[in-house]
Amino acid sequence: MSDGLFDGVLAAGPVARLVEDRAWVQAMLDFEGALALSSAEAGVIPEQAALEIEKHCLAVDYDIAALGAAAATIGNPAGPLVRELARRAGAYVHLGATSQDVIDTAAMVVTARALDALIVELRCCADLLDRLAEEHLETVMAGRTLLQQALPTTFGLVSACWLSGVACCYEQVARVRGRLAVQFGGAVGTLAALRDNGIPVLAGVARRLGLAEPVLPWHTERGRIAEIAGALGQVSGAVAKVARDIVLLAQTEVGEVREGGPAGGSSTMPHKRNPIAAVLAASAAAQAPGLVATLLGAAAHEHQRAAGAWHAEWRPLTELLRGTGSAVHWLRRSLERLVVDPARMRVNLDARVLTEHIVTELVSISAMGRQEAVDLIAAHADSGDPVERLVANPAIGRHLTHRRIAELLDPTGYLGCSAQFVDRARAEWSRLR
Amino acid sequence: MSDGLFDGVLAAGPVARLVEDRAWVQAMLDFEGALALSSAEAGVIPEQAALEIEKHCLAVDYDIAALGAAAATIGNPAGPLVRELARRAGAYVHLGATSQDVIDTAAMVVTARALDALIVELRCCADLLDRLAEEHLETVMAGRTLLQQALPTTFGLVSACWLSGVACCYEQVARVRGRLAVQFGGAVGTLAALRDNGIPVLAGVARRLGLAEPVLPWHTERGRIAEIAGALGQVSGAVAKVARDIVLLAQTEVGEVREGGPAGGSSTMPHKRNPIAAVLAASAAAQAPGLVATLLGAAAHEHQRAAGAWHAEWRPLTELLRGTGSAVHWLRRSLERLVVDPARMRVNLDARVLTEHIVTELVSISAMGRQEAVDLIAAHADSGDPVERLVANPAIGRHLTHRRIAELLDPTGYLGCSAQFVDRARAEWSRLR
Amino acid sequence: MSDGLFDGVLAAGPVARLVEDRAWVQAMLDFEGALALSSAEAGVIPEQAALEIEKHCLAVDYDIAALGAAAATIGNPAGPLVRELARRAGAYVHLGATSQDVIDTAAMVVTARALDALIVELRCCADLLDRLAEEHLETVMAGRTLLQQALPTTFGLVSACWLSGVACCYEQVARVRGRLAVQFGGAVGTLAALRDNGIPVLAGVARRLGLAEPVLPWHTERGRIAEIAGALGQVSGAVAKVARDIVLLAQTEVGEVREGGPAGGSSTMPHKRNPIAAVLAASAAAQAPGLVATLLGAAAHEHQRAAGAWHAEWRPLTELLRGTGSAVHWLRRSLERLVVDPARMRVNLDARVLTEHIVTELVSISAMGRQEAVDLIAAHADSGDPVERLVANPAIGRHLTHRRIAELLDPTGYLGCSAQFVDRARAEWSRLR
Amino acid sequence: MSDGLFDGVLAAGPVARLVEDRAWVQAMLDFEGALALSSAEAGVIPEQAALEIEKHCLAVDYDIAALGAAAATIGNPAGPLVRELARRAGAYVHLGATSQDVIDTAAMVVTARALDALIVELRCCADLLDRLAEEHLETVMAGRTLLQQALPTTFGLVSACWLSGVACCYEQVARVRGRLAVQFGGAVGTLAALRDNGIPVLAGVARRLGLAEPVLPWHTERGRIAEIAGALGQVSGAVAKVARDIVLLAQTEVGEVREGGPAGGSSTMPHKRNPIAAVLAASAAAQAPGLVATLLGAAAHEHQRAAGAWHAEWRPLTELLRGTGSAVHWLRRSLERLVVDPARMRVNLDARVLTEHIVTELVSISAMGRQEAVDLIAAHADSGDPVERLVANPAIGRHLTHRRIAELLDPTGYLGCSAQFVDRARAEWSRLR
Repeated sequence: MSDGLFDGVLAAGPVARLVEDRAWVQAMLDFEGALALSSAEAGVIPEQAALEIEKHCLAVDYDIAALGAAAATIGNPAGPLVRELARRAGAYVHLGATSQDVIDTAAMVVTARALDALIVELRCCADLLDRLAEEHLETVMAGRTLLQQALPTTFGLVSACWLSGVACCYEQVARVRGRLAVQFGGAVGTLAALRDNGIPVLAGVARRLGLAEPVLPWHTERGRIAEIAGALGQVSGAVAKVARDIVLLAQTEVGEVREGGPAGGSSTMPHKRNPIAAVLAASAAAQAPGLVATLLGAAAHEHQRAAGAWHAEWRPLTELLRGTGSAVHWLRRSLERLVVDPARMRVNLDARVLTEHIVTELVSISAMGRQEAVDLIAAHADSGDPVERLVANPAIGRHLTHRRIAELLDPTGYLGCSAQFVDRARAEWSRLR
Repeated sequence: MSDGLFDGVLAAGPVARLVEDRAWVQAMLDFEGALALSSAEAGVIPEQAALEIEKHCLAVDYDIAALGAAAATIGNPAGPLVRELARRAGAYVHLGATSQDVIDTAAMVVTARALDALIVELRCCADLLDRLAEEHLETVMAGRTLLQQALPTTFGLVSACWLSGVACCYEQVARVRGRLAVQFGGAVGTLAALRDNGIPVLAGVARRLGLAEPVLPWHTERGRIAEIAGALGQVSGAVAKVARDIVLLAQTEVGEVREGGPAGGSSTMPHKRNPIAAVLAASAAAQAPGLVATLLGAAAHEHQRAAGAWHAEWRPLTELLRGTGSAVHWLRRSLERLVVDPARMRVNLDARVLTEHIVTELVSISAMGRQEAVDLIAAHADSGDPVERLVANPAIGRHLTHRRIAELLDPTGYLGCSAQFVDRARAEWSRLR
Repeated sequence: MSDGLFDGVLAAGPVARLVEDRAWVQAMLDFEGALALSSAEAGVIPEQAALEIEKHCLAVDYDIAALGAAAATIGNPAGPLVRELARRAGAYVHLGATSQDVIDTAAMVVTARALDALIVELRCCADLLDRLAEEHLETVMAGRTLLQQALPTTFGLVSACWLSGVACCYEQVARVRGRLAVQFGGAVGTLAALRDNGIPVLAGVARRLGLAEPVLPWHTERGRIAEIAGALGQVSGAVAKVARDIVLLAQTEVGEVREGGPAGGSSTMPHKRNPIAAVLAASAAAQAPGLVATLLGAAAHEHQRAAGAWHAEWRPLTELLRGTGSAVHWLRRSLERLVVDPARMRVNLDARVLTEHIVTELVSISAMGRQEAVDLIAAHADSGDPVERLVANPAIGRHLTHRRIAELLDPTGYLGCSAQFVDRARAEWSRLR
Repeated sequence: MSDGLFDGVLAAGPVARLVEDRAWVQAMLDFEGALALSSAEAGVIPEQAALEIEKHCLAVDYDIAALGAAAATIGNPAGPLVRELARRAGAYVHLGATSQDVIDTAAMVVTARALDALIVELRCCADLLDRLAEEHLETVMAGRTLLQQALPTTFGLVSACWLSGVACCYEQVARVRGRLAVQFGGAVGTLAALRDNGIPVLAGVARRLGLAEPVLPWHTERGRIAEIAGALGQVSGAVAKVARDIVLLAQTEVGEVREGGPAGGSSTMPHKRNPIAAVLAASAAAQAPGLVATLLGAAAHEHQRAAGAWHAEWRPLTELLRGTGSAVHWLRRSLERLVVDPARMRVNLDARVLTEHIVTELVSISAMGRQEAVDLIAAHADSGDPVERLVANPAIGRHLTHRRIAELLDPTGYLGCSAQFVDRARAEWSRLR
């Protein structure tokens, strides 16, 4: 049992509440309620019985720990819950269904609610990134490859790149949300106990729960689980990318961004300004790959119910939803607090990063080959005022004036399509949103 | 270096050839060729230079091992390849591009070709399953939960369930195929070296390679890799499910299916009929979860080029394509050879599995509660002729005649919606195909 | 927060209680208590202060949910706990330590207690297996390769093989238990705040907590975590092997073992005897590979405290301990309940599995080559009374009498070293125990 | 098939050659040779036959691609190899053995040779780190937590921490090396075909191959594979830690270390000094967690030979050995080239990091509580000359003189046990080496 010791850190944001045990029980009861109403609609059970069942489908009325303890005997918590519901609401409870129907459909309901919340959080993140991309369209900073300064870029483009990743996740999660389907097949997936009424009841349950109606029961065909896992893995990756960059840009020696606000102060080191929200986003995102692997590794459900692979999904699915929810939430917090320092970005930008510009110019106006130009410039790369050093070399000075070299070393003149890329990414977000 | 010792077993089917080193080099050269032609089209380089470059873009002309050895210095094989191409085709080679552009776009080209082949293989599998579902619409067999016989189902429904999983993968892979996009951004993703011509050249490269044009360079936004990984992970899961079931159904003690043909004989045990294709499909599929995790775990690409996470993708991406290709290919082989034994299915079906039918009947026609009926029936579950034993018990015999019990124990009368589900799954495949 | 809905199924056995939130808080307080007493011993703080601190180190006195909520600000629950302890017990609390010292050492204390319990459970499993190996030394059954009957073996040897795997885990876990070390380094691992007293205090804390004293702080050197992960991954693998075999042997069509007792009955299908403990053992074991990957993937702790990788360990470490604990516990339950059916084993054994014996004999007494003999025998493998069919073939009958063929087909005469292997495995367990 | 395109980058160092296909074939032949000689020794086959067999056990004499192609039929390459060896060396080849014996033992031989090479590489790394720890015992630098400067440490202690991790791996790998055991059990693990001679032949094979003799065949008990995986996962983690730190310390804005030598120059950006060896070490290390998960996930080998899980090990085991070998090799290269800049370390060290020192002093000499002192100091943390700003505040100036504050802000006076920790780590390495 968890008392929430790590939840403030590892289970932040709205998703956590939607995947906790009580939410699972409610979703299981939602299935039973929808089943009863749909069965009544199809004439399988009396309407009065269905209404009685529905009345008892509130999670708050059940003792979750007791259900959990009783679950050990049969191997899942649906058994004891159904038994308890039947005790209260009569024999028409659960008609035609099996434990896996209850739990699989509950998993989809829980996932649907979690994804709905995640979509909102992702939209907030994307909107914040969209604003950063707009505001910093012309904020020049060092582009870094292998963590070495390489060429100038803009913080607008950096933000647009982050936005592009988050926006794509938004689209994926929404797509997967639409594919979540009810599971209803009875003991072996034939709906035998319902005779001719199987399909109408299936359709009714799906409609009532806001889930898709599958072409057939998917009790041992777990493609949906894989799709959910894949999408959440992608979300975690997108968060990890942004969080890592923020942590790197916030380093003491870089200082180009920081998280404002009260959070992250060290208890013993008052001077520290830890980018704690980005750190926690990264830590939550790091959970995903292993959990995705566990879910994918549990795909081979034997015959008509798996001997272990089914039970093996419950924890990692819940953890993956919770962890991804926490990752996105912490990213949102980090972006909300993000203080950008354009002046520091400009100061940090090493003049040497513009040497590529000179190489290109030399190649295009002289007979010099690319490699020759690269080697020539490399000899001047290490120290001193680069303009003076470069113009002083006759092989360079012959082709380029002092002024042209200064121009070429001006980063704002070497930003290529960065503004166009920012516009395109923002337009795409505007379309997806 | 691999000499192919394990390839007959672990790298079967058409995908393996499409992801081998030579295919990678060809894809890298395809990028350089498309870049040259697109640059000429945009007026960035002379058309003659582009044609000269294109002429040298055949992988067969390059020494791959030498490129590989030279790659160590710069950290990727694009560097030496570009150097060698420039030596042959002149200074306009690779203009505006960086090594990552070459390798990332090549990765997309390689993936596109592999997915195209995978789609064909998946279609074959789905067609074979579609035929099984049709042929065995009425072939009764035991439905098994937790590897225990539970209720009757049909081999048609089992096949339709397998079909549904494979068909969904077919759809997913085709969707992801359409999202594969060219990567082109230059050193830090601004296309600075191309000044105003960046976007047209980008568009030209995408068009020529049959890839999508991204809104901005994705050099450090790896959502596409995650999408590919997710889809392939799902494919492997679907294969694993079918393969596991085939292996289980082919057990000596079950014998409901076997793989025909010469394969899988044991050298020392002449009586054995190993379902070797299904075994190898399962083993290939088992590679996926870990490889997906590696790709997802490498998502946090720092700044404008990752310090390790980028290089970390190459091997798992190739292995995941190859492994999934092998998995699907072995599944196809297994299904092509599959010999189904309906008579054995009928013989294996334990009469006791129909007791649920009797429970339902007792509950509906008597005042008996469900649990009471279950307990009553349980007492007769273990041995002897079930009809005789059941009718002999007055609590049952009072409600059910000998004939009615025999009827209830007839599996063909207790198949629920199985035929409808088969039809729905086949119709969906017909729509997707 | 968890209310335990899935705990009866997924968190069985004694380990679960030892890794829950309250156990973590107690372990954190145990660190603070040991630190205070050791600091007093070294003359760093007054003894009275230490005794006062120790008095307040009972987890039951703290509001865990409140600590969890407060943890979000600083990014870990040690901060609020220390603050609260200091409020109660004065300013000498936590002297020289940092949050990571508290949590890392608590992780080791929690792990130590969990491993101690796991060792007991593993010993029980091994003892049960040892008994099975002894009892069934001569119980002949089919050896199966690729799930096809191959040659005879004994259930004693099968049990000894299971025993060997579990015994090796027992040894590994005990070894790793001895390597668990205290973490104590202060803010950056220098113990600067303790001046000359660092090492004695470190030694005192280790001694008081029953942990090893490390040569230096391991705050960002996570080899210990990897060792724990590796050992638990191995345990889960050993459990998975045994559980899978039990599930397979318990299949309706095989029926060579079953789990006795009340558990695992289906609510709707009274005839079913699900090997539920083995199923749940398998499902718990399936969690491990992904969790191990997450822990290994978090190894690159930056500089003197990781920006995310540290927090990323807490959940998977706890889950891995709990899941492995549950796996081993369910295995123990399964073995305790295991009913073996030697008669069914004998009946299931297909006479054809002994053809290898005949091949070997033919090769050794005739001029026949191995392959020729294999092909010859293969022609008789499929049906009828094998002795009659074989002797009737002149190529065989020429070399082997009716009686000799019957002898060769007697499985008890073809068990090789099985008894010796059983003895060796049991002797090793007796040595390790 | 691989032509080595990525091998210069991803398969560096001596291990790669030892795990390639030819090495596997040689190891398989080594098993057959050892089996023949041991069988002759035990009187099972004629000595002359054994010598003839041994003569044909050179990998160079076999067509590996042809073996690979032929392997598809039977599902493993041992079948065709044995057939080919028997064609050359006669019918006594492979007596009593099964394909899995050949491949499993070959896997152990390949692993043993790879680990032997890895141990040498690890020793080199540890020796290099030992030297760094010694040389930089007093080199003060910023200790960084969450990538923010926190307190001073020394580069000697940083190196000692790295050393400690590598040294522990050295010990682990050597331990696991000693546990590698021959696999020999015949078709189902009973050695039935060898009658009474099984154990002596088993012992002889083990002795000849320099492997341990197991208590019983481990064909479906894969604890050894898990142990290897765990140890290699730990190695990769230790490498990842050091590599990540090097990359971070080598950032343009930090510049405290760099990799000397010619490597890592950018083709287009002459000013760049990429820490390419560390980058490639990190990328190789990133492969491990997923591969370990795949190996652990394949642990449940059914009955007496797994239907897929066995084949699923071959690729990840080879990749894990190769990848770990590459990781350690690149780390060695990085350390060999590492240029440390103590002056830059001193310059980078932010005076504010010593504020903790002042807090401790204030608490110990005044009535101020810790939090009060922290808050007081925090107010002065942001700008200007800290000594002046601090002494100017009466709440501080009352307790501390200008000179005392300067002393407290001197990092060399606040290094705690760093020198002792360095000595302890070096002594441990000296003991383990």
